[in-house]
Amino acid sequence: MNYRSALPLSHVRFPRGFLAERARLVREVVIPYQWEALNDRVAGAEPSGCVHNFQVAAGEKPGKFHGLFWQDSDLAKWIEAAAYRLATHPDAALDAELDRLIATLAKAQGADGYLNTYFQLVEPQQRWANLRDCHELYVAGHLIEAGVAHFRATGKRTLLAVVGKLADLIERTFGLGPGQIPGYCGHEEVELALMKLARATGEARYARLAAYFINQRGQEPNYLAEETKRRGDPLPWHMYFDGLGTLQAARPVRELAEPVGHAVRQMYLLAAMADVALDLGDDSLRRTCRRLWDRIVQGHLYLTGGVGSEPYGEKFTEPYDLPPDRAYAETCAAIGVIFFARRMLEDELRGEYADVMERALYNNVLSGMSLDGTKFFYVNPLELIPAVAKRRYECHLVKTQRVGWFGCACCPPNVARLLASLGEYVASQRPDGLALHLYAECDLRFAVAGVGVRLAVRTDYPWTEAVALEVQPESPQEFTLHLRVPGWCRGARLAVNGAAHALAPVDGYAALRRVWRAGDRVELTLPLPVERVRADPRVATVAGCVALQRGPVVYCLEQADNGALLAALSLPRAAELTARHDPALLGGCVVIEGPGLRLPTGPALYQTTPPEPAAQSLRAIPYGLWANRGEGEMRVWIRET
Amino acid sequence: MNYRSALPLSHVRFPRGFLAERARLVREVVIPYQWEALNDRVAGAEPSGCVHNFQVAAGEKPGKFHGLFWQDSDLAKWIEAAAYRLATHPDAALDAELDRLIATLAKAQGADGYLNTYFQLVEPQQRWANLRDCHELYVAGHLIEAGVAHFRATGKRTLLAVVGKLADLIERTFGLGPGQIPGYCGHEEVELALMKLARATGEARYARLAAYFINQRGQEPNYLAEETKRRGDPLPWHMYFDGLGTLQAARPVRELAEPVGHAVRQMYLLAAMADVALDLGDDSLRRTCRRLWDRIVQGHLYLTGGVGSEPYGEKFTEPYDLPPDRAYAETCAAIGVIFFARRMLEDELRGEYADVMERALYNNVLSGMSLDGTKFFYVNPLELIPAVAKRRYECHLVKTQRVGWFGCACCPPNVARLLASLGEYVASQRPDGLALHLYAECDLRFAVAGVGVRLAVRTDYPWTEAVALEVQPESPQEFTLHLRVPGWCRGARLAVNGAAHALAPVDGYAALRRVWRAGDRVELTLPLPVERVRADPRVATVAGCVALQRGPVVYCLEQADNGALLAALSLPRAAELTARHDPALLGGCVVIEGPGLRLPTGPALYQTTPPEPAAQSLRAIPYGLWANRGEGEMRVWIRET
Repeated sequence: MNYRSALPLSHVRFPRGFLAERARLVREVVIPYQWEALNDRVAGAEPSGCVHNFQVAAGEKPGKFHGLFWQDSDLAKWIEAAAYRLATHPDAALDAELDRLIATLAKAQGADGYLNTYFQLVEPQQRWANLRDCHELYVAGHLIEAGVAHFRATGKRTLLAVVGKLADLIERTFGLGPGQIPGYCGHEEVELALMKLARATGEARYARLAAYFINQRGQEPNYLAEETKRRGDPLPWHMYFDGLGTLQAARPVRELAEPVGHAVRQMYLLAAMADVALDLGDDSLRRTCRRLWDRIVQGHLYLTGGVGSEPYGEKFTEPYDLPPDRAYAETCAAIGVIFFARRMLEDELRGEYADVMERALYNNVLSGMSLDGTKFFYVNPLELIPAVAKRRYECHLVKTQRVGWFGCACCPPNVARLLASLGEYVASQRPDGLALHLYAECDLRFAVAGVGVRLAVRTDYPWTEAVALEVQPESPQEFTLHLRVPGWCRGARLAVNGAAHALAPVDGYAALRRVWRAGDRVELTLPLPVERVRADPRVATVAGCVALQRGPVVYCLEQADNGALLAALSLPRAAELTARHDPALLGGCVVIEGPGLRLPTGPALYQTTPPEPAAQSLRAIPYGLWANRGEGEMRVWIRET
Repeated sequence: MNYRSALPLSHVRFPRGFLAERARLVREVVIPYQWEALNDRVAGAEPSGCVHNFQVAAGEKPGKFHGLFWQDSDLAKWIEAAAYRLATHPDAALDAELDRLIATLAKAQGADGYLNTYFQLVEPQQRWANLRDCHELYVAGHLIEAGVAHFRATGKRTLLAVVGKLADLIERTFGLGPGQIPGYCGHEEVELALMKLARATGEARYARLAAYFINQRGQEPNYLAEETKRRGDPLPWHMYFDGLGTLQAARPVRELAEPVGHAVRQMYLLAAMADVALDLGDDSLRRTCRRLWDRIVQGHLYLTGGVGSEPYGEKFTEPYDLPPDRAYAETCAAIGVIFFARRMLEDELRGEYADVMERALYNNVLSGMSLDGTKFFYVNPLELIPAVAKRRYECHLVKTQRVGWFGCACCPPNVARLLASLGEYVASQRPDGLALHLYAECDLRFAVAGVGVRLAVRTDYPWTEAVALEVQPESPQEFTLHLRVPGWCRGARLAVNGAAHALAPVDGYAALRRVWRAGDRVELTLPLPVERVRADPRVATVAGCVALQRGPVVYCLEQADNGALLAALSLPRAAELTARHDPALLGGCVVIEGPGLRLPTGPALYQTTPPEPAAQSLRAIPYGLWANRGEGEMRVWIRET
């Protein structure tokens, strides 16, 4: 498992339900589809070249490198996702396919352990020469994550051996020792990968290498600044405004006051920092993680759980600068939020971490993939007017409809690996029992003091408020079930074996300790009223607006339901909103409906006669399901009148 | 005069008042200051190199060309402004300075008439080779305008001869004849300049040359497309989205359905089209002008009279895409709106043209210059949060405070030449008398049927509603005074010699025909209530907001008066707003005050408890006077609650 407290993926099953359906899509559609894409067999999609590049590097076929210099990482993320699928759904054909692919990777690897098809095929003399831009360690990190996942899923050490050799090369090459490069990667990723490798192999030196990368980052003399000077090239365009801060490398990481720079990198760095803080017991790093968590949650988090409000450089900006139409909110960055949150849950069982994790999952991440699993968003705005987004330069990275693949295809396989490993996010093993973080229909297996326990969770959450748990220990056993009571939830109720039970959550978790016997039933009720959410008015772009939320699900208006010109719509303060399950809509979901108002257009561009708004019923759908009915306007923040 | 119906500048005096003070600043501060800037004698400002370049080209000093390839035009615009100053305020020293400068220009001119210091000093082989990008005809146009203005102001033909030679070269070089270049300039300007030259010299061939440039624009085979192909270079970045439409050259001008591309170019083209339509009696061009006027006014005009809502390429975008924070609203583009509007008034006496002209003048154009005349805005947003504007890439061209000069210094001398020639915008001679377009304290001289008439306008407009006119014909004379009744004005009243007089404006002008005798007095009252203006909700970014306007003056909230976080402020629907003249504020102006509400910040980024807004008095100041009290937030559109 990626998290020390996570249950093995094979011990978590999702038989049905909303998330189960997404996970099934990933297994049955996304992973096979992406395999085709990585093999350049998807008509109309931008070619990937990934498998081709490894085959060429392995000498299995002639040809040239295709793609961006971090292209290998797309394949690595897919291998990781495929391995998670093998862990939960053994599949001989996929297993064999992976074996063949891994053999190619092993053949492509240099004798010294180096493996990066771009630098092997295109610029062999430039190895490690441009850490600022060239993502070599980032790519290595994804290969390492793939190797660990494959090993855990299959027990085979084939890919683990390859990435171990690569990690050993990195260990020899980087550091403060004589002859070593005192550098680190412009794009963080290898740090968290090395932490996984350390756990998988039991080799603490990999954790120390991760710590080195984190601790050395931004130290003076600044390696990336020196490297830049050596090459004599200018800072690239995407380092606009923040300079090396774009890479979180302008100062040592413990001195970061606010999240800065490229959002995915910042989140991956924070995830790795949390790993190192915990595994190596580094308190100053732990304090830094908590401080940055607070700053993100207080000023940089979109309601949908996304981060990164500046498309130019895919970056964090000022606190509260969260424009909905210019949200970057890259799918990968929201996944980074989940990585960070999940690791913070390892540090402390605090509901806030799970709340944010759940918010990012149900909204920004699910928005990243179409209902049928074949199309993806990279950018996930909170407001879209297609004609404007197509026209204005600052929106030129926004796609008005999901696309099949991207030249820079980081997001699709990232969604796949996250949803394929959902089991690691649902629960944590605790010394005294088990903590449940996410509520979804699932069957868990874990052990307490050697006694095996099965836990069946039955629920239609997030659509319905009842969560039923049935506990099946092999023999009566005392332990604690820590049940998360979401931060948005008021009036949660609990019954044990039919009898009401006091619920006194501490830091967002209610500890239910008792001697559990086979067949014990817990009923948790999480009321799901429709809520109007308002942003701090320092979020100037949505002052005076409300967003609708029900449980963890953020809602949006779509043109398909409400007509065009959503900006003309408003929601009266007193309007009563109702939630209704529509089994036919978007695979079945709860919609929110209520009376609204629409401002009339015309007759002039500007006028002094107050307009008479007309009544119009509004219907909002879950944000994570938007853009599944053709191109149209969308809007999360609705004017309140 | 630049307009056939305008009074000569020497016949219009502004003894005192709001606009007079701006014109005085231009004469006494801006023109001398810009002369220093053009001579690179302003410490701390970006060097211009303009005078230097001509001196080098003239062989008067050694050295290299400095600046952008259209640098000459900054000097040309300054000469034009200085000539206007000479016309209204004779000044022997300035006259001599201009003579010396013109001698340099004459020496710099090639034997064939060519004059462009960039191509003379830097790329002599590339003359006329890149019409798409290199602005040679644009620069020539500004020189021609300068030559015409200098001739009209002084009667001297020194510069007129230089630009005449240049125009003759252009006439020989461009056209559809054998050996001629069938091209036109990527940046329109020469067209309207040639129309002025035609009027000043009486040579119709210059008007025909202007018509050629307009008619040939965008015709197939597309000259700029062919030229681009010949050079083999890609379209430059600023042609993002619109391609050659950025230069209004994707199709013939009569086929334009909406304004398109670079806003200044589009407005200069339209101004020239209106000139040609009128002077050459071209009805299809006239219809095109009217159609595009309507499209601009109905969907592309900022409330401040500015145009261009896309910083990337300084362009028009989709109808109704008028975000206040991302407004480009370049000062030059608003001047272009005024040029177009003033020419449309030559076509028809319709108040709408004057309304827009006045709106652009009092708001977007005045915003372009600081109260003391030493600093300038290029971009004039309708909303500014300095920290955000400094941070977000799409705002990187916004200056949060006016600056002394720009590397691309088109705007400062453009403001100067406009304000120095205000007399041409105030009134029009009509066959039957005189039309007054703008109300400002002034003394006019004109003639009707050979009888000289003096007209004294006494008013503190736009601050007060009374406009008193005293008519002094040399002898009793029947004629019509066409008095504009602004479109925003309801309940205008008229008295003649103390007796109420019916006011029945047609198309925004009230015709007052009578035998005028010396001492006749007209009192026009233009009520100036505070108005709440609302935009069509298709302007999605300001739906639900109001702007305050009083007469032609648009108001804004500034941080200096209202504290930071202006987005938290709202104006209740029922709040009574009062106007108050504050003689001490910003040189004396009317402020608007009223009770408002402020949303509290915190405690969380997102919350479900409805916030309790607190009462706060609001004070709005004229938009044209913003940013004269240090850096701070500003906002035109205020949420209405």
